[in-house]
Amino acid sequence: MSDIRKTLEGLATGAVSVDEAMLRLKTEPFDDIGYAKVDLHRDIRQGAAEVIYGEGKTAEQIIGIVESMMRHGHERILITRIDQAKADAVGAVHRISYNKEARIAIAGDKAGSMPEPDGVGKIVIATGGTSDIPVAEEAALTAEVLGNEVVRLYDVGVSGVHRLLARKELIMQATVIIAVAGMEGALASVVGGLADCPVIAVPTSVGYGASFKGLSALLSMLNSCASGVSVVNIDNGFGAGYMANMINHVGK
Amino acid sequence: MSDIRKTLEGLATGAVSVDEAMLRLKTEPFDDIGYAKVDLHRDIRQGAAEVIYGEGKTAEQIIGIVESMMRHGHERILITRIDQAKADAVGAVHRISYNKEARIAIAGDKAGSMPEPDGVGKIVIATGGTSDIPVAEEAALTAEVLGNEVVRLYDVGVSGVHRLLARKELIMQATVIIAVAGMEGALASVVGGLADCPVIAVPTSVGYGASFKGLSALLSMLNSCASGVSVVNIDNGFGAGYMANMINHVGK
Amino acid sequence: MSDIRKTLEGLATGAVSVDEAMLRLKTEPFDDIGYAKVDLHRDIRQGAAEVIYGEGKTAEQIIGIVESMMRHGHERILITRIDQAKADAVGAVHRISYNKEARIAIAGDKAGSMPEPDGVGKIVIATGGTSDIPVAEEAALTAEVLGNEVVRLYDVGVSGVHRLLARKELIMQATVIIAVAGMEGALASVVGGLADCPVIAVPTSVGYGASFKGLSALLSMLNSCASGVSVVNIDNGFGAGYMANMINHVGK
Amino acid sequence: MSDIRKTLEGLATGAVSVDEAMLRLKTEPFDDIGYAKVDLHRDIRQGAAEVIYGEGKTAEQIIGIVESMMRHGHERILITRIDQAKADAVGAVHRISYNKEARIAIAGDKAGSMPEPDGVGKIVIATGGTSDIPVAEEAALTAEVLGNEVVRLYDVGVSGVHRLLARKELIMQATVIIAVAGMEGALASVVGGLADCPVIAVPTSVGYGASFKGLSALLSMLNSCASGVSVVNIDNGFGAGYMANMINHVGK
Amino acid sequence: MSDIRKTLEGLATGAVSVDEAMLRLKTEPFDDIGYAKVDLHRDIRQGAAEVIYGEGKTAEQIIGIVESMMRHGHERILITRIDQAKADAVGAVHRISYNKEARIAIAGDKAGSMPEPDGVGKIVIATGGTSDIPVAEEAALTAEVLGNEVVRLYDVGVSGVHRLLARKELIMQATVIIAVAGMEGALASVVGGLADCPVIAVPTSVGYGASFKGLSALLSMLNSCASGVSVVNIDNGFGAGYMANMINHVGK
Amino acid sequence: MSDIRKTLEGLATGAVSVDEAMLRLKTEPFDDIGYAKVDLHRDIRQGAAEVIYGEGKTAEQIIGIVESMMRHGHERILITRIDQAKADAVGAVHRISYNKEARIAIAGDKAGSMPEPDGVGKIVIATGGTSDIPVAEEAALTAEVLGNEVVRLYDVGVSGVHRLLARKELIMQATVIIAVAGMEGALASVVGGLADCPVIAVPTSVGYGASFKGLSALLSMLNSCASGVSVVNIDNGFGAGYMANMINHVGK
Amino acid sequence: MSDIRKTLEGLATGAVSVDEAMLRLKTEPFDDIGYAKVDLHRDIRQGAAEVIYGEGKTAEQIIGIVESMMRHGHERILITRIDQAKADAVGAVHRISYNKEARIAIAGDKAGSMPEPDGVGKIVIATGGTSDIPVAEEAALTAEVLGNEVVRLYDVGVSGVHRLLARKELIMQATVIIAVAGMEGALASVVGGLADCPVIAVPTSVGYGASFKGLSALLSMLNSCASGVSVVNIDNGFGAGYMANMINHVGK
Amino acid sequence: MSDIRKTLEGLATGAVSVDEAMLRLKTEPFDDIGYAKVDLHRDIRQGAAEVIYGEGKTAEQIIGIVESMMRHGHERILITRIDQAKADAVGAVHRISYNKEARIAIAGDKAGSMPEPDGVGKIVIATGGTSDIPVAEEAALTAEVLGNEVVRLYDVGVSGVHRLLARKELIMQATVIIAVAGMEGALASVVGGLADCPVIAVPTSVGYGASFKGLSALLSMLNSCASGVSVVNIDNGFGAGYMANMINHVGK
Repeated sequence: MSDIRKTLEGLATGAVSVDEAMLRLKTEPFDDIGYAKVDLHRDIRQGAAEVIYGEGKTAEQIIGIVESMMRHGHERILITRIDQAKADAVGAVHRISYNKEARIAIAGDKAGSMPEPDGVGKIVIATGGTSDIPVAEEAALTAEVLGNEVVRLYDVGVSGVHRLLARKELIMQATVIIAVAGMEGALASVVGGLADCPVIAVPTSVGYGASFKGLSALLSMLNSCASGVSVVNIDNGFGAGYMANMINHVGK
Repeated sequence: MSDIRKTLEGLATGAVSVDEAMLRLKTEPFDDIGYAKVDLHRDIRQGAAEVIYGEGKTAEQIIGIVESMMRHGHERILITRIDQAKADAVGAVHRISYNKEARIAIAGDKAGSMPEPDGVGKIVIATGGTSDIPVAEEAALTAEVLGNEVVRLYDVGVSGVHRLLARKELIMQATVIIAVAGMEGALASVVGGLADCPVIAVPTSVGYGASFKGLSALLSMLNSCASGVSVVNIDNGFGAGYMANMINHVGK
Repeated sequence: MSDIRKTLEGLATGAVSVDEAMLRLKTEPFDDIGYAKVDLHRDIRQGAAEVIYGEGKTAEQIIGIVESMMRHGHERILITRIDQAKADAVGAVHRISYNKEARIAIAGDKAGSMPEPDGVGKIVIATGGTSDIPVAEEAALTAEVLGNEVVRLYDVGVSGVHRLLARKELIMQATVIIAVAGMEGALASVVGGLADCPVIAVPTSVGYGASFKGLSALLSMLNSCASGVSVVNIDNGFGAGYMANMINHVGK
Repeated sequence: MSDIRKTLEGLATGAVSVDEAMLRLKTEPFDDIGYAKVDLHRDIRQGAAEVIYGEGKTAEQIIGIVESMMRHGHERILITRIDQAKADAVGAVHRISYNKEARIAIAGDKAGSMPEPDGVGKIVIATGGTSDIPVAEEAALTAEVLGNEVVRLYDVGVSGVHRLLARKELIMQATVIIAVAGMEGALASVVGGLADCPVIAVPTSVGYGASFKGLSALLSMLNSCASGVSVVNIDNGFGAGYMANMINHVGK
Repeated sequence: MSDIRKTLEGLATGAVSVDEAMLRLKTEPFDDIGYAKVDLHRDIRQGAAEVIYGEGKTAEQIIGIVESMMRHGHERILITRIDQAKADAVGAVHRISYNKEARIAIAGDKAGSMPEPDGVGKIVIATGGTSDIPVAEEAALTAEVLGNEVVRLYDVGVSGVHRLLARKELIMQATVIIAVAGMEGALASVVGGLADCPVIAVPTSVGYGASFKGLSALLSMLNSCASGVSVVNIDNGFGAGYMANMINHVGK
Repeated sequence: MSDIRKTLEGLATGAVSVDEAMLRLKTEPFDDIGYAKVDLHRDIRQGAAEVIYGEGKTAEQIIGIVESMMRHGHERILITRIDQAKADAVGAVHRISYNKEARIAIAGDKAGSMPEPDGVGKIVIATGGTSDIPVAEEAALTAEVLGNEVVRLYDVGVSGVHRLLARKELIMQATVIIAVAGMEGALASVVGGLADCPVIAVPTSVGYGASFKGLSALLSMLNSCASGVSVVNIDNGFGAGYMANMINHVGK
Repeated sequence: MSDIRKTLEGLATGAVSVDEAMLRLKTEPFDDIGYAKVDLHRDIRQGAAEVIYGEGKTAEQIIGIVESMMRHGHERILITRIDQAKADAVGAVHRISYNKEARIAIAGDKAGSMPEPDGVGKIVIATGGTSDIPVAEEAALTAEVLGNEVVRLYDVGVSGVHRLLARKELIMQATVIIAVAGMEGALASVVGGLADCPVIAVPTSVGYGASFKGLSALLSMLNSCASGVSVVNIDNGFGAGYMANMINHVGK
Repeated sequence: MSDIRKTLEGLATGAVSVDEAMLRLKTEPFDDIGYAKVDLHRDIRQGAAEVIYGEGKTAEQIIGIVESMMRHGHERILITRIDQAKADAVGAVHRISYNKEARIAIAGDKAGSMPEPDGVGKIVIATGGTSDIPVAEEAALTAEVLGNEVVRLYDVGVSGVHRLLARKELIMQATVIIAVAGMEGALASVVGGLADCPVIAVPTSVGYGASFKGLSALLSMLNSCASGVSVVNIDNGFGAGYMANMINHVGK
């Protein structure tokens, strides 16, 4: 339970006075720990706690932010783009579950388990090839930790379109689809044409030469001739998982 | 009522035999009129009829596609990127409602009215400046014709962030937000940080010099530090409206 | 009959001496008309006469080159990227057949008819949308004037992949396929995955915003995950038609 | 012999019933091994078995795919972009032949030998310089394993055009030519002007500074003033070899 | 005290004749040490001594330049972009103070202390995130060594705009603000809209994918819809600190 | 006099009560006129009133914004990027002074005169060539209307560096310098090396070919080897003038 | 005769005193006519008078500069990038010779004739195609007006390399060669490989699609595998002619 | 003495018959050693022997080419872009002189000495900074081995333009100047404005951020407002030295 909820419930039960509640809300919009201002209201404002972007932060900084969040009641803290060494350092002091391929960690007292899914339906995550799986897993784990049922549909790229068509019923039953592909990124358009739900496209940096580290797939997806497709940054599995979670909780 | 639904209802009522139904579904997945293969199953597959992208088509071609769709029961046909001259040509033979600023038309027997909104909640459309309004209107009209309630919130760019904060309650109540901005496109990040719903970002080509016709805003939005933001093509108001409609109908 | 063949046949029949033949071959590798050096050996070297690229040339220059080629025996001279005004100017002095949409003209005594197809099989030309047709027609007319049977398959873009699958037998019977598409250019990959023949991909400048005038489709096609796909310049219908013709005459 | 052929032959000889054949064809369009869906129909659809793109796959994944293909009757499996360590890992469990320079491996029971060439004619592979040889070898080995006679013509760049002209008769006798060059990539245009057969151009990342890792050669080749030239991705020797093989088997 | 000032003071006190002063000024505009021409007049011309850009110089070259400057009276010499190894080499022969994170060193007799601030007011340095701190520190240390009071305001990115608004009074009191941000770089616009003083924007290479190593933030900042914002090179903390110092000394 | 000042003065003189003042300040942070939210607090927040960016706005919209600002007490309203036709439309209903070359207008009761300069010193505006003058004039008029003394120094590009050196004393006396140049934009570096005050660099789109509409000059200026140079958008004379004004009023 | 020479000759003949000469040289390094500072010393410094770049200048400004130069003794003044209308305006008040294709004019008393060639040898100007001729003529006329013998060799692009080889003796006899080509720009490399003299490469904007307005040719030429090739800006015929002139006068 | 000269002298002295000479010239235009076709006629065609571009070649290949050239009489063979390890390998079997900084080696019997300069005048090589020296040295050594007198003028960048002006007489006396600079590359324009001889500009990859590995300097130099400047590839010291040598031998 987050500290904001604690305050509000204390208020509802009379344990906290109105003035005291006002003071707490006013004085704790974030926790200032010097190198970071940890945002603690976000679970009210955005329906999910702050996520730690691990790249460019030292292990010490990550641990500091984790501890600030734990102090305020967070039980599963997502850390993205975190390498093995830093994950080990965090794991030395806190409970952690780490996926090396996706470079993603969950820290906190409930790090070992995923919450019960409570979304509208299922999130289907498709990849063009085997090499796109790490990015897809970043999306999948993000969605799962936020409370979604995820279906994985890997290696269904358009150069063998029958592989995708053979799983057409999965596409048809999804509430949201995440299409992950590198090279020419055509998967998003074909999926977008088949599906009747929102499609989040994730270009990956898989490819070489004129793929220009994901630029080719990114442009393809932005120019998709299918309707109902929107795009996140190259290799941004987290962003896609987060967005899909939001969509899968619309009206909830 | 679309012709596919007609077939299925005829089947349910005994007016059409199973074999006849099979035949119709098989033989009419699209209407081949030479220069175009009009997709007629899409309202089953995707929850909305095909939209006509007007640019690069002659008025004659547009009329031909409109008529193919009307023959199959469509009553409001959206035509995007259509200039005044072509709209006049279509309007000479069919009922049409045209918005010059957004270069968008609705053709068909019910062109003059919008359908009853039946989505989960409201779609809020915000723009950074006055010059972004045409793209925003393309999104707004698209969403409205697909059955959504739309709230317009124009000229709230981040250089005067108090204008946006003064309307914060609108942001908080939205089911989906479309953020339309050119130049540096920072609106998407600020809105994304405030909102707790999905944000569709639309970069516009408004700007000059190093905006490189929308590239600057596009990159900004793709790199948004806020979670829950995904992006469509530059100036693609239609795509944003269509995506927002899909999200606003999740679970419906 | 080209003048080179005339020389060689004259030699075979004794009408021309060896020395005379040597002299002609030596002195006429091209016709120097000042602003242009008209290449006349190319039909030996490359199996087809020189083609005139109309853009950037004046009507006078085009007429001069046409006349140089006619003098040397060419009966159908292809002129690409030629606008209506220049085509009219050429038509005022020579027999011409002009396709405005594809901006392509055939000049010469046999301008009005196509030669008998003599290739291995059929060339199938597919487009993603209606707006890609002008480029496709440039390819089609080029292939036809060079002696090929062409099958047109327009508006089969991947956002409605069933339209393409419905014509799958055409794809399967082709000797060469030309895939013409703008926006995200995914058509080439899907066709490449279905076909068992070479695919020439032509990116078009159809699209807007982040299509960057064909760059998006170009990169997509270069990064195609399907094997057996190669690419020509943006909007280069002629190049694709010419390449397809060469492939369709392999071993002939 | 592939399993599809086995099924069909069993059908022809009465060893397999029609229903059994239908079942097998229906149930085995691909082999789903979790991280990959191995495409097994492709040798019918495309005249050649699936190729494994080694980059971004673990040695374990590669071995898994190889085994899936071997189970279905493939005797020579091409693996591209595979480094020494992974090749060693594959070689520890299966017969393998590895070319380090071209980073290409052939695995399977017949890995040690090339099949009998059965194409229309010869494939000539030319390079601009010595540094382009690895890419050229990727093309050459791909073409050879697919059943083609290959002629190598290395270091004939246009800065010493007499080196190319001295081998002009090779150019004239080719059925297809692959032109491999980095830096300014002019080789494709000069070869294209000399040859009367299709030319596949492969830009390489050889060069520095404004070659921008192959972009310069790529653009050059796309803009070739010679007709009959099409282009594959930067450093994509495999793609060129595969395309050349298809062309060299037209009508076969 | 610099040697130019020494000369002028010597002139004022009669210790140096006018002719002698002329000669010195004429003959010593810089110190030519072979691989470098150390600029010694710059403290007259520009209000601050030359700074050594460490990248691409050997430790020996850096030491040589430091010694040239010390000989001419400089007591604190700023060395930017200097790694640990080179800093150690310099520190072995001269007094040095080194900041590893910011890769910045101060050498000279007074390396251990900062001068007394003598600017108009305060320089506020804000960052979008924790990962931008190294660049911000380069700016802060540069400004401090040049005699400015610096206020650090880190991790106030626009995805949680309340963190910035909570420190609004700092923004309002600044004389100059340096806004340091990667990803979409929106911080500069929001700060620019709030502040009534000049804002120097520093894009950083923090981010991934379509941030293209700082290009996204750079374009954002150049296209800022706020007035009073100008931009320095990506990661150029030094340039921002130097510029802010100049502005903070206007009229002094 | 602006309406905010009116309110505050009314408060000071007792004409307005504290509660009334609070109300006005709260209720009028901007004037919402539908298509625009005119920012009226900005002269407090930023030391200058809002400026109207004319491009992409209709004449009607511009007039509406002008009138909103006039109602709130503004006497000189700057309108940038406004063409002759729109300027005429504004001039038909309000006092206006228009500079066609710089496409800049001043509207309002005091449009015909400039305010008394009250900055620290002089702003020198230098251009590389004659073709850069329109952008320089946009900067100059902006600075003048904001209360600065401006010195124009045109056509002093670095290909004839003696022209600049001949005016060296102007450079030395400036409080801020604006360096306006297209092509290679080297002026900023040379001026930056000579001056001991902040330099605002404005790249212009003057040039052709590889100047890529100002990109070359922009990159040059961002990479300036001189310290104390910061950059605004291509052709952004207004931005440079505004920034220079802020710097010239530091401490005021 | 230029005014500088006049001064020096006056000094030599005693008509001007030393002091007077000093004064003139000091006070007239350029002629300040407000919008331009006409450089008059350049014929001493650089061996040729200043050239007027017409683009972006009004006819009035051009005339003003021409008159300043005429006053100081110039008899042939080169004006580049000048359109017909401006040329007519100049021609109305001064003697002028205009080449519309190359958009180049020569004004002044001797505008009608070219000076006697006085270079080391011949400048050969080759083009890839007919469309490159306008740029080539800009180079040719520039070189001729500066006193060089020019040989034109047009339409010798590498797609028909025999056309170039047939003129090999011209290439061999040149002192400098200017290679003008668009599209893939391979001409520079082939010429560079054949020639034993410096080659100036001029990329042109001839082409379409992925030629990106000359970028393709520019990169090709910069990456030329031939030695002895250097490059000027896209379409910069003047720059090439000027550089060739300098080379052709080395040692003179 | 090269083998071509040997043949011709043998012919002149009667030691070789005409038929024998013809045969040798015909059969040895290059030496085909498999992975390379060593060009041996180039010293006739181009006035200098072939140079070995070391990058992308193995030590074995380099040695093979060196030996081919030595067999044909070359006594000093230039090898560029060769790292220490390969240089050591070559040095183990042949006489070699190696410059690590410039990554350049000279192999052959006379590797230890430079030839007598025999050019028209001096080549001046200027750099913007200390970090540009390695590229400058590549140019200097290339020019020296080809027989030129070289004057080095390092660290004279435009941010301290007096350092360049102090050496103005060197600039004035040069026959050719090579201007080497990274960052904004303004040196070429300033030198080009001062000099009256051809200037070869070499952009370097020195810089960071928006220098984009030399792109900024490259564009600057291509857009130089000074006449008489042409450009080679980024970091291409060899190309500049070779070109300067050619210019310095014009008429010789």
